Amino acid sequence: MTQKLAAEFVGTALLLISIVGSGIMAQSLFGDDIGSALLANAIATGCMLFAIISIFGPISGAHFNPAVSLAFFLRQQLSAKLFVAYVLCQIAGGVIGVWITHMMFDLSVIQTSTTLHRTGSAQWLAEVVATSGLLLVIFGGLRSKPDAIPTLVAIYITGAYWFTASTSFANPAVTIARGFTDTFAGIYPGHIFGFIMAQFIAVIIASAGFRFLLAEEPPRK
Amino acid sequence: MTQKLAAEFVGTALLLISIVGSGIMAQSLFGDDIGSALLANAIATGCMLFAIISIFGPISGAHFNPAVSLAFFLRQQLSAKLFVAYVLCQIAGGVIGVWITHMMFDLSVIQTSTTLHRTGSAQWLAEVVATSGLLLVIFGGLRSKPDAIPTLVAIYITGAYWFTASTSFANPAVTIARGFTDTFAGIYPGHIFGFIMAQFIAVIIASAGFRFLLAEEPPRK
Amino acid sequence: MTQKLAAEFVGTALLLISIVGSGIMAQSLFGDDIGSALLANAIATGCMLFAIISIFGPISGAHFNPAVSLAFFLRQQLSAKLFVAYVLCQIAGGVIGVWITHMMFDLSVIQTSTTLHRTGSAQWLAEVVATSGLLLVIFGGLRSKPDAIPTLVAIYITGAYWFTASTSFANPAVTIARGFTDTFAGIYPGHIFGFIMAQFIAVIIASAGFRFLLAEEPPRK
Amino acid sequence: MTQKLAAEFVGTALLLISIVGSGIMAQSLFGDDIGSALLANAIATGCMLFAIISIFGPISGAHFNPAVSLAFFLRQQLSAKLFVAYVLCQIAGGVIGVWITHMMFDLSVIQTSTTLHRTGSAQWLAEVVATSGLLLVIFGGLRSKPDAIPTLVAIYITGAYWFTASTSFANPAVTIARGFTDTFAGIYPGHIFGFIMAQFIAVIIASAGFRFLLAEEPPRK
Repeated sequence: MTQKLAAEFVGTALLLISIVGSGIMAQSLFGDDIGSALLANAIATGCMLFAIISIFGPISGAHFNPAVSLAFFLRQQLSAKLFVAYVLCQIAGGVIGVWITHMMFDLSVIQTSTTLHRTGSAQWLAEVVATSGLLLVIFGGLRSKPDAIPTLVAIYITGAYWFTASTSFANPAVTIARGFTDTFAGIYPGHIFGFIMAQFIAVIIASAGFRFLLAEEPPRK
Repeated sequence: MTQKLAAEFVGTALLLISIVGSGIMAQSLFGDDIGSALLANAIATGCMLFAIISIFGPISGAHFNPAVSLAFFLRQQLSAKLFVAYVLCQIAGGVIGVWITHMMFDLSVIQTSTTLHRTGSAQWLAEVVATSGLLLVIFGGLRSKPDAIPTLVAIYITGAYWFTASTSFANPAVTIARGFTDTFAGIYPGHIFGFIMAQFIAVIIASAGFRFLLAEEPPRK
Repeated sequence: MTQKLAAEFVGTALLLISIVGSGIMAQSLFGDDIGSALLANAIATGCMLFAIISIFGPISGAHFNPAVSLAFFLRQQLSAKLFVAYVLCQIAGGVIGVWITHMMFDLSVIQTSTTLHRTGSAQWLAEVVATSGLLLVIFGGLRSKPDAIPTLVAIYITGAYWFTASTSFANPAVTIARGFTDTFAGIYPGHIFGFIMAQFIAVIIASAGFRFLLAEEPPRK
Repeated sequence: MTQKLAAEFVGTALLLISIVGSGIMAQSLFGDDIGSALLANAIATGCMLFAIISIFGPISGAHFNPAVSLAFFLRQQLSAKLFVAYVLCQIAGGVIGVWITHMMFDLSVIQTSTTLHRTGSAQWLAEVVATSGLLLVIFGGLRSKPDAIPTLVAIYITGAYWFTASTSFANPAVTIARGFTDTFAGIYPGHIFGFIMAQFIAVIIASAGFRFLLAEEPPRK
């Protein structure tokens, strides 16, 4: 069990390094050209996701995401004890990842985001869509093409930066950790709860809907 | 059969979310830099195509495209009843996808495109090339490398945004749905018919030409 | 044999559509931002290469390149007759591809390039490096990872647009065809011979050098 | 053994051609838009890494990196004699690659970098993170998904250009060779030692930490 938790911790730390680090690098190089910054941010995040899911998949399942762990728990594929431990490691790993990133870029380690536009019902709907899509990719991938899961998640998130209005946080641990950085990827802490609620709703919707949509034995026509 | 239709509906909705959503995001971030907007649009569309074809391929065949369904019908690999049901689900899914996108980006849900440059014989030729190419990728892929179909279609369309003059709609359901958005990806409704005719011509050309070009038993030299 | 020749013809036409078409689209959208234009050009070319090599590989070998066909001929893996026929189909397909592209973009079909900077010893050295690299990727790929050949060639060329000073033509049929377009991808016809000589030298160097570098039975240490 | 050394020499030369060449091309096309230049640089480097690791992996192991060779030596998977020979070939190949690149771009062959910002504790921390991450990708990949190693390394480095503050040299031979070019990818020779120390520390940390994190037989929970 310790190895699994270490994998979730290290993987989530690396995920946040990729999200926050590439955001800082991109904003420092692109300045006002936020579009190009988001493109670099999306590509770098996708690259890291492919790496950490490939490596840690056979060790811990490579969740790095409490919403994903919750979905596995609801399917009774993760014990309650492991679920709680995973979530704590994901959050801790995420925050540590943000702090390491700040050190790499010579910034104050402890920060609080002042990014204020990540709230409101349209943004929350975007998070519901983004998180449902992520769960579809994971559980649909497990059903149809399990070897491709690292690629599927990486590619989906790279695209979802662009086609969801919220740039697709889709992950409560990532959302919390991004409250700890006042850089490109930040989210004002008062807006974290709304995002996590939306992600939670997506887990409920997806868990119900996939029973039919992704059923193994399709009904005869 | 219901599961297949649900897959076509959900997949086409997600496809339109990726096309229209990334177009809105890109235009809002890049403004007049239409080239960069098209690049983000192309990448995001390719990402979604890879995901939905990987997931829904073993369920419904992952057509999401009446031109593709027609080609399978002409090869007698899709029944007339299923062909009609697929097309209706693809169109409905596409329009719903556009509407969900508008809600995510806090725009009026019901819109009509006023984009006027998508017409004329050069654009129609581009759609013939784009759609023939897509069918070549699908049926050539089925012949030569079936496991790579999701990658092939995603990669082909990402490129075709750039090398066809029409940015490669290549899909009647997508064309119709894009009439319902007055954003980056829109097409004036009066120009939809011309695009669909061109796509239809490509199905005819491709269905004839592939019998020789992609023949399983190459003639001895 | 006819099917093989048709594959070489259609594939090379599609390759030129991707090179010249994405160049025209990129220059019309990016204007003076030649860097971004080259990025779109490189990505679109790589996408098409992946598609056509995947599809036509099992049919004709997917050369689309007289330098590649020559290398196979020198290894006695292609007959003299087929070699000559391949080269003719590649050149004809390339030119037709350029003309179709001009029609899609509503330009004069018959053009001659006036792009004058593709000459001189540094450019020729770049073509020697680019073509040797391409042959290394093909013959090294055949030795070490044959299933990955479409990906290897596509990825190599996408990168080589950037790391060779000539943007990596690396293909006599492509070089000739690009003389027929006065757009982004063009080359002044008087400079074609120098490029083809450099590509030919690369075939000689590579054919000799690979015997040791890519030997199947490495000498015992 | 000679074939292995030739592979390490040629591969590292090609790696430097991709890093330095795409940097020169990108800076000449993008000018002050350093963000876009770095994106092209990152993509071109990733493309080359995928190619050379795919091809030379079965021949020499495709290290191209003294830090990687050292990690294999510490695991007793590389003899002391071969370790030393690999490192010498990697350094020589890297420098020759830089010189060939200068010739391709018509620049003075012999140069010394004057790029002064690649030093200080934040940059060194970035190199520790970058190199540890690279080793995690290699040894984690060997454990969990060995066939994907070329993709994993290529994708990781493409992302790491963005999420590490140092743009991820992560390779002593590359670091030394980049001292020999006064272009985009250069590093002032006086700062090379600090980078190599950081890379060396990463090898020590990673070699210790991976024994638990990547253990083959996870402890029962």
